[in-house]
Amino acid sequence: MLTTLPEAHRRLEETLDPEDWEALRRLGHQMVDDLLENLRTVRNRPTWRKPPTHVREQLHEPLPRAGQGEEKAYRDFREYVLPYSTGNIHPSFWGWVIGSGTPFTALTEMLAAGMNPNVGGFDDGASLVEDRVLDWFKEGFGFPAAASGLIVSGGSMANLVGLAVARHSRATFDVRRLGQGAAPQPMVLYASRETHSSVTRAVELLGLGRDALRLLPVDADYRLELASLEQAIAEDRRAGKQPFAIVGNAGTVNTGAIDDLYALAALARREGLHFHVDGAIGALAALSPELRGRLKGMEEADSLAFDPHKWGHFPYEAGCVLVRDAEAHRATFAASADYLARLEGGITARGERFADRGPQLSRGFKALKIWMGLKATGADRLGRLMLQNVEQARTLADRVVRNVELELLAPAPLNIVCFRYCGSGEPTDFDALNKALLVDLQESGVAVPSGTVLEGRFAIRVCLNNHRTRREDIVLFVQEVLRRGRALQRRGVGREKP
Amino acid sequence: MLTTLPEAHRRLEETLDPEDWEALRRLGHQMVDDLLENLRTVRNRPTWRKPPTHVREQLHEPLPRAGQGEEKAYRDFREYVLPYSTGNIHPSFWGWVIGSGTPFTALTEMLAAGMNPNVGGFDDGASLVEDRVLDWFKEGFGFPAAASGLIVSGGSMANLVGLAVARHSRATFDVRRLGQGAAPQPMVLYASRETHSSVTRAVELLGLGRDALRLLPVDADYRLELASLEQAIAEDRRAGKQPFAIVGNAGTVNTGAIDDLYALAALARREGLHFHVDGAIGALAALSPELRGRLKGMEEADSLAFDPHKWGHFPYEAGCVLVRDAEAHRATFAASADYLARLEGGITARGERFADRGPQLSRGFKALKIWMGLKATGADRLGRLMLQNVEQARTLADRVVRNVELELLAPAPLNIVCFRYCGSGEPTDFDALNKALLVDLQESGVAVPSGTVLEGRFAIRVCLNNHRTRREDIVLFVQEVLRRGRALQRRGVGREKP
Repeated sequence: MLTTLPEAHRRLEETLDPEDWEALRRLGHQMVDDLLENLRTVRNRPTWRKPPTHVREQLHEPLPRAGQGEEKAYRDFREYVLPYSTGNIHPSFWGWVIGSGTPFTALTEMLAAGMNPNVGGFDDGASLVEDRVLDWFKEGFGFPAAASGLIVSGGSMANLVGLAVARHSRATFDVRRLGQGAAPQPMVLYASRETHSSVTRAVELLGLGRDALRLLPVDADYRLELASLEQAIAEDRRAGKQPFAIVGNAGTVNTGAIDDLYALAALARREGLHFHVDGAIGALAALSPELRGRLKGMEEADSLAFDPHKWGHFPYEAGCVLVRDAEAHRATFAASADYLARLEGGITARGERFADRGPQLSRGFKALKIWMGLKATGADRLGRLMLQNVEQARTLADRVVRNVELELLAPAPLNIVCFRYCGSGEPTDFDALNKALLVDLQESGVAVPSGTVLEGRFAIRVCLNNHRTRREDIVLFVQEVLRRGRALQRRGVGREKP
Repeated sequence: MLTTLPEAHRRLEETLDPEDWEALRRLGHQMVDDLLENLRTVRNRPTWRKPPTHVREQLHEPLPRAGQGEEKAYRDFREYVLPYSTGNIHPSFWGWVIGSGTPFTALTEMLAAGMNPNVGGFDDGASLVEDRVLDWFKEGFGFPAAASGLIVSGGSMANLVGLAVARHSRATFDVRRLGQGAAPQPMVLYASRETHSSVTRAVELLGLGRDALRLLPVDADYRLELASLEQAIAEDRRAGKQPFAIVGNAGTVNTGAIDDLYALAALARREGLHFHVDGAIGALAALSPELRGRLKGMEEADSLAFDPHKWGHFPYEAGCVLVRDAEAHRATFAASADYLARLEGGITARGERFADRGPQLSRGFKALKIWMGLKATGADRLGRLMLQNVEQARTLADRVVRNVELELLAPAPLNIVCFRYCGSGEPTDFDALNKALLVDLQESGVAVPSGTVLEGRFAIRVCLNNHRTRREDIVLFVQEVLRRGRALQRRGVGREKP
């Protein structure tokens, strides 16, 4: 609407828009310059730095009642926050499974926030973009075009949505209305013991109780044992339970193991169970022609959880779930309310609401970074970068195997390498030694691997989920591990067997 | 690590960083300029525009295997996406409860994505910022400093977290391990029938079943009837159920009604129930000294859900939950896993993990926009802008009441006004007439109110949750409602009583 009241009246009303647009424009340019320069030069800095005491103190201010201005807010960010990143933008960050982000997709987050759409499913551009991104993933993963999906916050939420659909579509009673207490038989589901904790958490949250999740043995390659699975299903049926889902792993968190998804899909079909795949770690590798074959059977999943913010390097947050049966997906979550009613025209005319596919009603424009990033870069390049990481992992595993001071603790089939430093081989508490070595590597700024425990042995775990990593970083990392491991051993760390 | 291998070898490896940083810098400046210009001039454009057919066709491309480049991705965004916003950045968008965003906080989203931290609870700057933001909200809402909290995606997730804590802390059995089926007595909770659908959805997701949620009558002001509540609790106890929580509304979605939170808090204490407040719509008004008194009792809640991305105008997504009992919060969600183990030093040394307070493990840096926005603007200014919206709502309600062609359909105690056009008062299907009028207002670009149904009557619902709205927009809106309502009535819309 055009303005008609005099300027004097208008000034009585405030907005959060700037008084001085030009000043904000200059600040925005400064932010872009600093952001890009910070990323361009990240290799020259330590991987991670502990925020020092004076920074913690500076941040300790009470709720600002009066504004300090945009420039001051940005200065404080640059001084007290920016230097103390998690470290995952650095080429030598290999902890857990954390994507690196990209400079271009960081810029696109500003565009999403500038439009600030609520992507609940209005008839608007943002919904069209999310439609497209979901179609692209269906295409990339070999899912049917009629499948459904949703962009979510990450793998935990994607697993929750997938398992909620599994529960709802297999329940023999109205679980939305009556709850889990009305189940005539306890509902149970199956996964390997290497399955990520988010699956357990989803099962707890859904009110199934974590005992309902049968965590089964794995083989020497850390893949779910099929014989154990078949036996567990049969036993549960005999005991009067209702098996309702199998969860397969497309890349386990500890070692990157890929379950035999093809066999699991066939078994689930045979047994009438929902087949959910947790692909948070490895599913995106389907975009690489060289890696795709390892994921055979994933395209048969009833639901697939994966994480564009991990190996896709789209900035946090960007998870995704695909659901084969669109109607089952909708039936699990769709809600009606007077204030949500759809009219035949106007902004609510769109038929498909994203809010009917998951727990969120208001939703941000996470799809934009994926859409723009995939358009800018292309899926092929993401595939090549994943293959590059897999080759780097092979390089690291080879060096570990060839070095008598190091020990490989698990097969490294994908991009994760678990090993430990053993050094001179004297009687040693290797767990204490390698924990100290891991802390030393992190605190020195050399690199950030994480740790885990495999067959009771503490492992240094290197997850090559980083598009900035070069082969030379791996070579230098091994040198540092040896140098620092020897120094710790000389200082007697781990000498005393506890 | 410094590079030591020759340049030739390095070039064999790819990254997602740009070849030409300077070109990306120029593109970033262009994005900033366009973003600010788009917001500066938003008032001159229609509130909402339906994406036309040629735009839908343009967006219909298959998964890009080869990259199209950053410039092309941005051009397509600017041409096919940006013009088709939800509309909530426009001063005349008053549908549902959707924040407007701000230019400055849009820029801060780029900073968060450039750092790209995973705010699961590492010892890093992002975690310190989230600590601070949670402390600020505790201070602003009168919660104790020892309370816990979490930034989440929005009100739906905040309600889910709050109710999960309620369920876990009141369950008489190990609900995480055994699930809802093990409850010795069915667990039930209470709220008014004006309560938001996300509460129902959370109850369903938790496996309680929506029948467990007693949706009770409201008084003439759309506030939960206390007598009905007391009676329902007593009846459920007699029937062998376990009442475990009361949900109060700090602003209902239909009319902005605020339950008697003080009385509900007292009743919950007396009955030993968890008191959860859904403050998605109104809680932030506590930042306004003039409005704060209306929320008396909110500070007594055991858990409080609210939405910085609504009346705080922080861009999507930004929800928040506060939980009075930090240990109960942690006990509801905390998980352990070998790959998550904490060491005494290094990046995992931080004691408090955000991942132990909700369903997410990987988490983005949503706290940054809130931290920078509050620093830049100050809480007082947010409070003034909320008061401004409440005064605008009073202006609208007054004009509706004074005009014989319009009818106010509910009290408007906060920032929401529900009314309908009645016009000449001939026997008319007012529902059909007002639905047509709503679509006309939206499609003409004049304004975007939403609709709802109150006591069986369709209402045009104006939610003044917009820092760009001026009083003059309200005045012109009423003129347009009358002009378009009369035109529809002349054309016979709603003439036939169905």
